[in-house]
Amino acid sequence: MLSAQYRETRQYTELLCAPLNIEDYIPQAADFTSPPKWHLAHTSWFFEEMILTKFVADYVVFDTCYGFLFNSYYQSVGEKAVRAQRGVITRPTVEHVYQYRHYVDEHIQRMLSGDIPQSVKALITLGINHEQQHQELLLTDLKYTLSLNPIGPVYRADFNLVGDHNHKNLQEQKWLKITQGVYEVGHLGDNFCFDNERGRHKVYLQEFDISASLVTNGEYIEFIESAGYSTFHYWLDDGWTWLNNNHIDCPLYWQNIDGQWHYYTLAGIKPVDSQAVVSHISYYEASAFANWKRMRLATEFEWEVASSKFEWGQRWEWTSSAYQAYPGFSISEGAVGEYNGKFMVNQMVLRGGSGATSEHHSRATYRNFFQPHHQWQYSGIRLVK
Amino acid sequence: MLSAQYRETRQYTELLCAPLNIEDYIPQAADFTSPPKWHLAHTSWFFEEMILTKFVADYVVFDTCYGFLFNSYYQSVGEKAVRAQRGVITRPTVEHVYQYRHYVDEHIQRMLSGDIPQSVKALITLGINHEQQHQELLLTDLKYTLSLNPIGPVYRADFNLVGDHNHKNLQEQKWLKITQGVYEVGHLGDNFCFDNERGRHKVYLQEFDISASLVTNGEYIEFIESAGYSTFHYWLDDGWTWLNNNHIDCPLYWQNIDGQWHYYTLAGIKPVDSQAVVSHISYYEASAFANWKRMRLATEFEWEVASSKFEWGQRWEWTSSAYQAYPGFSISEGAVGEYNGKFMVNQMVLRGGSGATSEHHSRATYRNFFQPHHQWQYSGIRLVK
Amino acid sequence: MLSAQYRETRQYTELLCAPLNIEDYIPQAADFTSPPKWHLAHTSWFFEEMILTKFVADYVVFDTCYGFLFNSYYQSVGEKAVRAQRGVITRPTVEHVYQYRHYVDEHIQRMLSGDIPQSVKALITLGINHEQQHQELLLTDLKYTLSLNPIGPVYRADFNLVGDHNHKNLQEQKWLKITQGVYEVGHLGDNFCFDNERGRHKVYLQEFDISASLVTNGEYIEFIESAGYSTFHYWLDDGWTWLNNNHIDCPLYWQNIDGQWHYYTLAGIKPVDSQAVVSHISYYEASAFANWKRMRLATEFEWEVASSKFEWGQRWEWTSSAYQAYPGFSISEGAVGEYNGKFMVNQMVLRGGSGATSEHHSRATYRNFFQPHHQWQYSGIRLVK
Amino acid sequence: MLSAQYRETRQYTELLCAPLNIEDYIPQAADFTSPPKWHLAHTSWFFEEMILTKFVADYVVFDTCYGFLFNSYYQSVGEKAVRAQRGVITRPTVEHVYQYRHYVDEHIQRMLSGDIPQSVKALITLGINHEQQHQELLLTDLKYTLSLNPIGPVYRADFNLVGDHNHKNLQEQKWLKITQGVYEVGHLGDNFCFDNERGRHKVYLQEFDISASLVTNGEYIEFIESAGYSTFHYWLDDGWTWLNNNHIDCPLYWQNIDGQWHYYTLAGIKPVDSQAVVSHISYYEASAFANWKRMRLATEFEWEVASSKFEWGQRWEWTSSAYQAYPGFSISEGAVGEYNGKFMVNQMVLRGGSGATSEHHSRATYRNFFQPHHQWQYSGIRLVK
Repeated sequence: MLSAQYRETRQYTELLCAPLNIEDYIPQAADFTSPPKWHLAHTSWFFEEMILTKFVADYVVFDTCYGFLFNSYYQSVGEKAVRAQRGVITRPTVEHVYQYRHYVDEHIQRMLSGDIPQSVKALITLGINHEQQHQELLLTDLKYTLSLNPIGPVYRADFNLVGDHNHKNLQEQKWLKITQGVYEVGHLGDNFCFDNERGRHKVYLQEFDISASLVTNGEYIEFIESAGYSTFHYWLDDGWTWLNNNHIDCPLYWQNIDGQWHYYTLAGIKPVDSQAVVSHISYYEASAFANWKRMRLATEFEWEVASSKFEWGQRWEWTSSAYQAYPGFSISEGAVGEYNGKFMVNQMVLRGGSGATSEHHSRATYRNFFQPHHQWQYSGIRLVK
Repeated sequence: MLSAQYRETRQYTELLCAPLNIEDYIPQAADFTSPPKWHLAHTSWFFEEMILTKFVADYVVFDTCYGFLFNSYYQSVGEKAVRAQRGVITRPTVEHVYQYRHYVDEHIQRMLSGDIPQSVKALITLGINHEQQHQELLLTDLKYTLSLNPIGPVYRADFNLVGDHNHKNLQEQKWLKITQGVYEVGHLGDNFCFDNERGRHKVYLQEFDISASLVTNGEYIEFIESAGYSTFHYWLDDGWTWLNNNHIDCPLYWQNIDGQWHYYTLAGIKPVDSQAVVSHISYYEASAFANWKRMRLATEFEWEVASSKFEWGQRWEWTSSAYQAYPGFSISEGAVGEYNGKFMVNQMVLRGGSGATSEHHSRATYRNFFQPHHQWQYSGIRLVK
Repeated sequence: MLSAQYRETRQYTELLCAPLNIEDYIPQAADFTSPPKWHLAHTSWFFEEMILTKFVADYVVFDTCYGFLFNSYYQSVGEKAVRAQRGVITRPTVEHVYQYRHYVDEHIQRMLSGDIPQSVKALITLGINHEQQHQELLLTDLKYTLSLNPIGPVYRADFNLVGDHNHKNLQEQKWLKITQGVYEVGHLGDNFCFDNERGRHKVYLQEFDISASLVTNGEYIEFIESAGYSTFHYWLDDGWTWLNNNHIDCPLYWQNIDGQWHYYTLAGIKPVDSQAVVSHISYYEASAFANWKRMRLATEFEWEVASSKFEWGQRWEWTSSAYQAYPGFSISEGAVGEYNGKFMVNQMVLRGGSGATSEHHSRATYRNFFQPHHQWQYSGIRLVK
Repeated sequence: MLSAQYRETRQYTELLCAPLNIEDYIPQAADFTSPPKWHLAHTSWFFEEMILTKFVADYVVFDTCYGFLFNSYYQSVGEKAVRAQRGVITRPTVEHVYQYRHYVDEHIQRMLSGDIPQSVKALITLGINHEQQHQELLLTDLKYTLSLNPIGPVYRADFNLVGDHNHKNLQEQKWLKITQGVYEVGHLGDNFCFDNERGRHKVYLQEFDISASLVTNGEYIEFIESAGYSTFHYWLDDGWTWLNNNHIDCPLYWQNIDGQWHYYTLAGIKPVDSQAVVSHISYYEASAFANWKRMRLATEFEWEVASSKFEWGQRWEWTSSAYQAYPGFSISEGAVGEYNGKFMVNQMVLRGGSGATSEHHSRATYRNFFQPHHQWQYSGIRLVK
């Protein structure tokens, strides 16, 4: 079953790349994005470095340069190519990177056909989850890159996640009440989870009401039209600075063409659908919107406790919680330990998932995190009052 | 009694400036510091703008330009001089700023000698607490400025806060245990507190042991000598970037002269006292030190709950908690509402107080906050295991 | 004959691209470089915009977006894509850009097969010379991009311009004397030249001696080993700042591997040939080297007057002349007028040509120019005493 | 006579400071400006370091720290305080700096009362000319600093250089013709000149007509109103970038108040006098203005040859010549050699002088130089056609 899961995950990454030209595999449009080629290679390198070189006695690495070229942030695995220059690495070619993938696949599948210890299975499962994370990044990074091309290129004509509507009828805004008391949060059970979800523990919550649905583009346009972007008292101080320095006055990818809001999507440029849920907003925008509404965002624990009562998975939902360690959190030894802990400052937690999140990847205890100014994820707003 | 408190606070600010030359009142050495002259004027402007112009019918402002020049971040009170250029404002002179202070003092005291509503008293109390905050900033900003002068100027030969030792005998490191359960945190009672402390509420804590004493320079030197600053896995990722970009390899103000650590103090350059508690470290450094010790920092609620069991007040103690709103926190209307809420992102909470904190200013529920890279406060480390 | 010249020039550009993979056409490694795809398209756009759309009555532009995407700096031809983001433009594909080239070629050749006015012939000649300039840039930009790839990719195994030796035997350094007097400089005759060469005029030169050969790598290594890069008094003040800010201690592409100097070439990484002429140095380095030798660089007029007495064309030779207008220089009307005049500040003149310069492109009156910190051209040093 | 010249120069510097408060001596408002206190000390340090410590056997330096604090750019004289942080050096006090001046004066005068070699006299003359340069900088730096204070402080109510009118009646614009031929330029005779003026030599000039008067504010307003600042083709490419990045749309210190142009002067904010000569413009602006007029600026040699025919000294006149070495220029040995040569790149020559230039300081061969974007000097425009 792990073998099938491995195969499906690896194939899905390549399926996501099917609509690309070779040219599309190359650019790195910003420090925080990576080229598709890099995602393809880096996820393979993870399996090679963390598993094959460690647990296959006679394994020969595909190319000794790849560790250097396709390491991401694992400082313990040696020198790495400068993060901001991933876009200049034209060699190896895309074709060679696919050969690399298949070479790694063959060796991992050979391992899986034999008898392997539970700890190695756990690492393969980690590698699969790691690759799923990169699948979503591959799409969001690609969208960012293509959006900078003035001709608005189409990735796939039927790929338009930003068109998502709320699952339930929006006519009546529904509020769900959670009573105060002690609750348990954090991952439970033996299934896979990341280290940052572990350490199930008690928290005390005050009573709150949480919206059953996400904020729509229509509601967000009201905020824009109420001078939301030019009224400083809705904004966090850092947000106000960010907005002014970067001349932000709408969500990422939005542009006003002759008085009508449009947005760039992976299916090309489309009119904004006012019934669809808002996307590509920063924490600063989510916070300002909530202030304007005289409401607030949920904490990550409020979200987790309430999450069984509403549907989620259309947008990553900004919470008001900074990303920090759970009680008893400890960093694993070695390179795997660099996965999560070292990012626990200056980042905000997002909960839920998005239409670009790989199937079965997220869960109620899943903690995604980004710096508060980032807009390039499919991020949205759920209100609490 | 409010009148006496007002007078003493205002006089103490001027007492702090007594050792200064006129030249010392002027420079702004960094974006995050302000000149003494500005602190003197800004705290006066706060009383004038928030109280005198609003509650004294025939009040004539001392100088209509001062609102513009000495506003800090209160966007709702109109345009303000650019924050980074406070150091070029040579006029009004220092003498005029003192006249301004005394003019404001006279009018506030006249108010206080009459019958004034409770709400106005509350604002005066806020102004007093605001000025106390600036007293500590005045000292820490001044220290930063003077430290950049290669000749190591002396502010006051007897002013050497970094020489503080732990209150208790250090020979036996003592650990205090707190058992798990529901605790209450946040301000209780009618005494003054800032809006960010309000909303006393329940939290659930897991069991933990907290040190009765602060980390000393001697212990910190061990960290330095154990390659603490060049071992990336002790560090948060942002901290590692900060350290490399800024070539940080010791606390602020430290320098190694012929193999012996020295630090700049307001009493001049002194050898580092290994028994004294460490100071002027960033959150990144506090976090790395704790990782090196295989311990951690307290959360702000752990600190608050445990604080009755140890002595505090020598250093601002970095907690592992990001600065965020308490349940039910709401921003006051008007300019006063800009005090705290808008800074609730990308900052870490510090608890306790320092030798530079004005008397009676801090309390167990007090929440100080700075960005994690700042070193210029008298900040230290208390460990939890 | 113009037709043949056009065809050969256009073909040569494509020949230069023959060793490239599609991936190599995409990256823009620095603000001052452009991707091969952009060079291919931009040179075609020049013919389309300046000639076909203006002089072919029924001409249909290949794609209306291309003007926007592949304009370079011609502000008068309307909005253009941001210069620093040429590397994100993955669409149109490389294949489409070749189709564009051939479409333009077909129309230009059709024009040339008919009867066209002299003024249009002049524009086509300008376009040919423009394309030749981009041929050299294509190579130097490509070298810069490939050099950033840690694996040191090979463009063509037999392409190693930095291996060039001086034409004459180096054993005897030969000095050529020019006597003082009035000389004429600037382009003479009816052959093509750029507008910045026009306006032949008299200048008065003092007597000087100029070297018959270029400085070699061996001589340059002596400069390095004489602490040339750490002795401030050889350097211009701006050069000293540049060197320190960018940690420069050798020519671009040089690296010291186990005590032996190597350089990246388009044929891969090679040991430095001490007999070959030095290359890839900035004006600052050329100036510092000359000071170290207690000699100087030639002015552009000294170079021009003396150039008939020595062989040149291996390296672009930095002169000590800032790039400025000749007497009577005037900017042509329209977009063509943006060619040269507007760059006449903060740039230094280089004379001669390099092994990467297209055949028949340069001449004794040719004025190349770059900012003094640039190293990515095949630039070298000829001394005067 | 040297003694009188020394005394008058030193006194004049102090006279310029007479209207200052102590506060005004401190700030450094930009990297390119220095505080008055620094100018006072640095000019004294020049005499101490270059003369007293070298030629007075038993001379005791006033304070060993001053060399470090008040050196400017003389790299050969040892480490120096960071240039950008001159504004944080509050100690020594202003009073001590005056004591330093008088201590140096006393020792120099004692030298001068004795018998000293010609070479030392030459150095004292250099020191006097150096101090005169700093007198003008002291004023222009001070103006820049005070201008940033929103209250528009007055230095001296009668100090309003920007009110200067052309010497001659402007009613008839007069053009002076210079015929083509060989001319001599550069300093002649034994009087003092800087090393960059030396090396009198022949140049060949083409015929030109030069204006007898400077461009006025009225003419410059016409340029502004003709969309001069938004028409790219008047501008050098670097100038266009500079203008857009810095949002420049008028000369430095100008502001439009209710449709009427005003400027900050050392006498406070005044309406722009349309008859007065324009000031505080960059080379980019001078060049754009000339292009708009379909004229040009003079080269420095044209200016020098023509200068006997018109009056000059109201504004530093931007020439179209980059600042470069004269034939035979060589850098003196030692620290004095750092005076001029190392700035000979990326700077443009200005000729003439301004109302802020110290009496007897300038001459027809004098070569002032600044980077082309600087506006803070009293710089103006003389046209050539």
